[in-house]
Amino acid sequence: MTNVSSIHSVPDRLAALRELMRAKAIDACIVPTGDPHMSEYTSDHYKTREFITGFTGSAGTAVITMNDAGLWTDSRYFLQAADQLAGSGITLYKHGLPDTVKTHTYLMQKLQPGSTICVDGRLVSSAWADKLRKDTSSGSFNLRTDLDLVGEIWSDRPAAEFNTVFEYPIQYAGVSRTEKFKIIREDMAKAGADALVLSQLSDIAWFMNLRGSDVMCNPVFFSFVILTKDSVKLYADADAFAPELAELLRCDGIDLLPYDSFYDDLKTIGGPVLLDRETCSELILRSLPKDIEVINDYSPVMKRKAVKNPTEMAGIHAAHLKDGVAMCKFLYWLKTAAAKAAETQLEMGISEMDITEISAAEKLHGFRAEQDLFMGDSFEAIVGYGPHAAIVHYSATPESDAALRPHGMVLIDSGGQYLDGTTDITRTIVLGPLRDEEKTLFTAVLRGHINLAKARFPDGLSGANLDYLAHEPLWQMGLDYRHSTGHGVGHYLNVHEDPNEIYWDERDLIPPMPPFEVGMLTSDEPGYYEDGEFGIRHESLLLTVAAEETEYGKFLEFEEVSLVPFDLEGIDTAQMQPDEIEYLNAYHEMVYTKIAPHLNEEERAWLRSATASI
Amino acid sequence: MTNVSSIHSVPDRLAALRELMRAKAIDACIVPTGDPHMSEYTSDHYKTREFITGFTGSAGTAVITMNDAGLWTDSRYFLQAADQLAGSGITLYKHGLPDTVKTHTYLMQKLQPGSTICVDGRLVSSAWADKLRKDTSSGSFNLRTDLDLVGEIWSDRPAAEFNTVFEYPIQYAGVSRTEKFKIIREDMAKAGADALVLSQLSDIAWFMNLRGSDVMCNPVFFSFVILTKDSVKLYADADAFAPELAELLRCDGIDLLPYDSFYDDLKTIGGPVLLDRETCSELILRSLPKDIEVINDYSPVMKRKAVKNPTEMAGIHAAHLKDGVAMCKFLYWLKTAAAKAAETQLEMGISEMDITEISAAEKLHGFRAEQDLFMGDSFEAIVGYGPHAAIVHYSATPESDAALRPHGMVLIDSGGQYLDGTTDITRTIVLGPLRDEEKTLFTAVLRGHINLAKARFPDGLSGANLDYLAHEPLWQMGLDYRHSTGHGVGHYLNVHEDPNEIYWDERDLIPPMPPFEVGMLTSDEPGYYEDGEFGIRHESLLLTVAAEETEYGKFLEFEEVSLVPFDLEGIDTAQMQPDEIEYLNAYHEMVYTKIAPHLNEEERAWLRSATASI
Repeated sequence: MTNVSSIHSVPDRLAALRELMRAKAIDACIVPTGDPHMSEYTSDHYKTREFITGFTGSAGTAVITMNDAGLWTDSRYFLQAADQLAGSGITLYKHGLPDTVKTHTYLMQKLQPGSTICVDGRLVSSAWADKLRKDTSSGSFNLRTDLDLVGEIWSDRPAAEFNTVFEYPIQYAGVSRTEKFKIIREDMAKAGADALVLSQLSDIAWFMNLRGSDVMCNPVFFSFVILTKDSVKLYADADAFAPELAELLRCDGIDLLPYDSFYDDLKTIGGPVLLDRETCSELILRSLPKDIEVINDYSPVMKRKAVKNPTEMAGIHAAHLKDGVAMCKFLYWLKTAAAKAAETQLEMGISEMDITEISAAEKLHGFRAEQDLFMGDSFEAIVGYGPHAAIVHYSATPESDAALRPHGMVLIDSGGQYLDGTTDITRTIVLGPLRDEEKTLFTAVLRGHINLAKARFPDGLSGANLDYLAHEPLWQMGLDYRHSTGHGVGHYLNVHEDPNEIYWDERDLIPPMPPFEVGMLTSDEPGYYEDGEFGIRHESLLLTVAAEETEYGKFLEFEEVSLVPFDLEGIDTAQMQPDEIEYLNAYHEMVYTKIAPHLNEEERAWLRSATASI
Repeated sequence: MTNVSSIHSVPDRLAALRELMRAKAIDACIVPTGDPHMSEYTSDHYKTREFITGFTGSAGTAVITMNDAGLWTDSRYFLQAADQLAGSGITLYKHGLPDTVKTHTYLMQKLQPGSTICVDGRLVSSAWADKLRKDTSSGSFNLRTDLDLVGEIWSDRPAAEFNTVFEYPIQYAGVSRTEKFKIIREDMAKAGADALVLSQLSDIAWFMNLRGSDVMCNPVFFSFVILTKDSVKLYADADAFAPELAELLRCDGIDLLPYDSFYDDLKTIGGPVLLDRETCSELILRSLPKDIEVINDYSPVMKRKAVKNPTEMAGIHAAHLKDGVAMCKFLYWLKTAAAKAAETQLEMGISEMDITEISAAEKLHGFRAEQDLFMGDSFEAIVGYGPHAAIVHYSATPESDAALRPHGMVLIDSGGQYLDGTTDITRTIVLGPLRDEEKTLFTAVLRGHINLAKARFPDGLSGANLDYLAHEPLWQMGLDYRHSTGHGVGHYLNVHEDPNEIYWDERDLIPPMPPFEVGMLTSDEPGYYEDGEFGIRHESLLLTVAAEETEYGKFLEFEEVSLVPFDLEGIDTAQMQPDEIEYLNAYHEMVYTKIAPHLNEEERAWLRSATASI
């Protein structure tokens, strides 16, 4: 929940906004969800859409005209949005349904030709603004992107937070920032650019070997970078840097400049500038000199960052060992509690465990917090019991928080930020008896996970070539899951990181899917969701490693770096092929060998049986 | 072998060409392999490259300057070309080797700025000519494409053959030509074009429901088409059409015009014209009015042709049943001969069978010729025994023709043209004892074939998403094959047909790979080739069919329409997964059920054991 003004109701806020719109001759105001860095999570200062609509979901776009107001959000939020918009005068538009009018069409329908539309140019990408102009070109609208109208009426708006920035030690980064500057300058030169603009926070954090805590679960800090052949300008909050760190940066040739002076400095860039219009805001583009050559391409920093270096790979192994220990301790605790509850149920007829979705997440957090170099969760853990697990983006609230019971399954998707790496793992845990159908699907999803994990292929293949493997057991039954199979993962950075991905349909992917390279870290997370019944997902992270080089080229394979058993109680062995069983047994043996030394005796005994050969 | 002039030696021909070049102020002459329709096989009339170099291979490009001459060809032909070019004064350039100079670079090296290059504009695509201009732009060369210089000195050049054109009956075509005109005119309108130019012969044959025999193994006829909203102009040889057929065409609104008048008529096209610059010749582009709008896109006819209609699908089944009968009769004959030879070897020490690669191909042709509606082979059969099978494009010559022996394997890749469909099948037949390694690889390739054949997937996937399946068993061993896994197949048309394909690397594919649709016919032909030792390929054709429709969308699967057993003697069952064995047993049972009624008693008994469950 965010800190919105308590002074006005939403209708009052809308009235104030419309008064301002009238004063500035604005006919429609678009209020998107976002920040000036196109971050996945929006911090409180930037929650203008939440302020003006009262809708608190993580995704949505509001469009406000003088007479109408609409909010577009996706299926995750249909119920919540309907609830929160009631009485606001804002109509809910269900994004993704075939009959729902699109925002751009809505503007065409509601506005007279020549009308003026306003959107805060910091919060939308330049590519987004281009698409708006294109889609509405026949309306001859004026587009103003220089105003933050909602900000002007938001009297008690939380200040933008600039928390302490700290050095990311070379022992974890592996490559110094000055070496990174050199590499990226070479990439820049190859692209024919004299300057490079970075606005994605994870790019900047990786490039600078710095970390912060300005965005939830993402160890990044609000900043921009302008890199030229002979200067590195870092725009951030000076107070966030200890004097020693500021001095270190100065010695590495970095000019630390005020965050807000970035837009003015853009005006002084000379020569061709490389930037990514999909992630750079419209305001960035508008701030550049008019006659400058813009080379629109994906950030070379994004591409380099995705390929982890040997030090980062060692950190990935270390972090996943600790995360595996925490997860195994947690699973022992959870499975023991479920077994005890099953006994109690037999004896006393009480079936509820004294564990809920939220308390389970807290317990898991506690086990992670005991681990060395733990910095926090890498995202808000998803603990979904029974039907809640069928909601792909479920997040328990005090109202929805379900008590676990010793039957069915609980889906737990969570991850940790460690100084030496970021983790992301999903296990579906069997708390009590399963129906045959549930076992069949648990096994089918696991077979997909395994078949992808054991792939081996020559240099050049991408996740689009491999995604079939993860879907196959479900597709053979006419079933599927409606999310991609895998995403890239940062290194003590964002848990969702472009550009590596595993998804068969790459036609509209932005950025395009690159071939796998040694050092890429990608999730493998097929699932199956039966609405109102149950949900299953099996996720580990896969590190791309070299297999062998033969006369047919370099072969790559995956190392499953997550070290947590899959629940054997969910598996119907009869459905599995021998090569799948062999893989699972070998993986479980590895988990036991690596994790057991870090457990106490009871935990170890449990892990031995949880990793037994099938 | 083609009919080249016997009057001159190659050096004499080169001298004559250079004299002509001097007279016309031409500094370099490029002589490609091709015809005005970008056909896969070149007919004798168009074998100008063969005439001027003496090299008879199916692929190659000659470049002749006043002082130098070079021939570029690929690895299939390195030995043959070296042999045939000896003493000609023409240097062999081995295409595809890293150190080999490219033809365009060669031109840059050999010619002075401002020189004039000549290439017959009918024989190269417009896209090819663009690339030549781009690659050599710094040379300021003049490019002349209006001359056929080799033709001018080729005194006894074979005339272009225009054989009889015949109606392709509606009972096999399924859709009338007038209905096709309607559909393609709709496609044209959607593309915003007033005219469509077709020059690919398979497109024209399909579009017109006509067939011919002007290109080896391809039942097509030399022709062009210009389609507009209200006219269909077919440029072909009038004498090739019986009066009744000409009348039929006239009734369907087709203007039958002289083949050569096509280029002049291009000059009269008004309005936007749709054509494919990858397949339309440079001369076609040059012949259009200068100010006309050219919409460069893939032919809508190519796209429609790839999706077989229900009648065509019925024909595919009928043709493959007959082809399966012919193949099974042949295999019984071959396997019986091998068994007899093995006995003879034991008794008398003579190991050679009285069957050679060429005689086996003739025997197989004979079995096909006994089948209803058989029209000829769909390509020159590849029968490769032992090490010959490792040569992917091997074609036995009287010199190379090897006698079969009762050991090792023979690879037989062949196909038939039937009025109701085109077939293409490869089986690798075990003639006698195999080494363990050979069995391992035979089985690995078969597992790849099976795993692709039993794929099931939602609408939208292409061959790039599935190719992993066919390679997987080899990739797991660090092995591979260096050809694509699958190609489209025409309907009583060319055995290689765009655009459907199965290949993981679609980055440079022209045309781009489309998603599978119900009715596409695609080969599934993984292989493995051990140089100097043996070769294995297992190929059937897969028809894309509907599987089921669920809440997750439309699912597609493949039907393996080729009906011939895989040689059980090559299989190491221990390597196969149960689901693969299950598939193979079900396929073999289907083969037996469908083919057995058409065999005699001995053949049937053999087929029973050749399709026994493993």
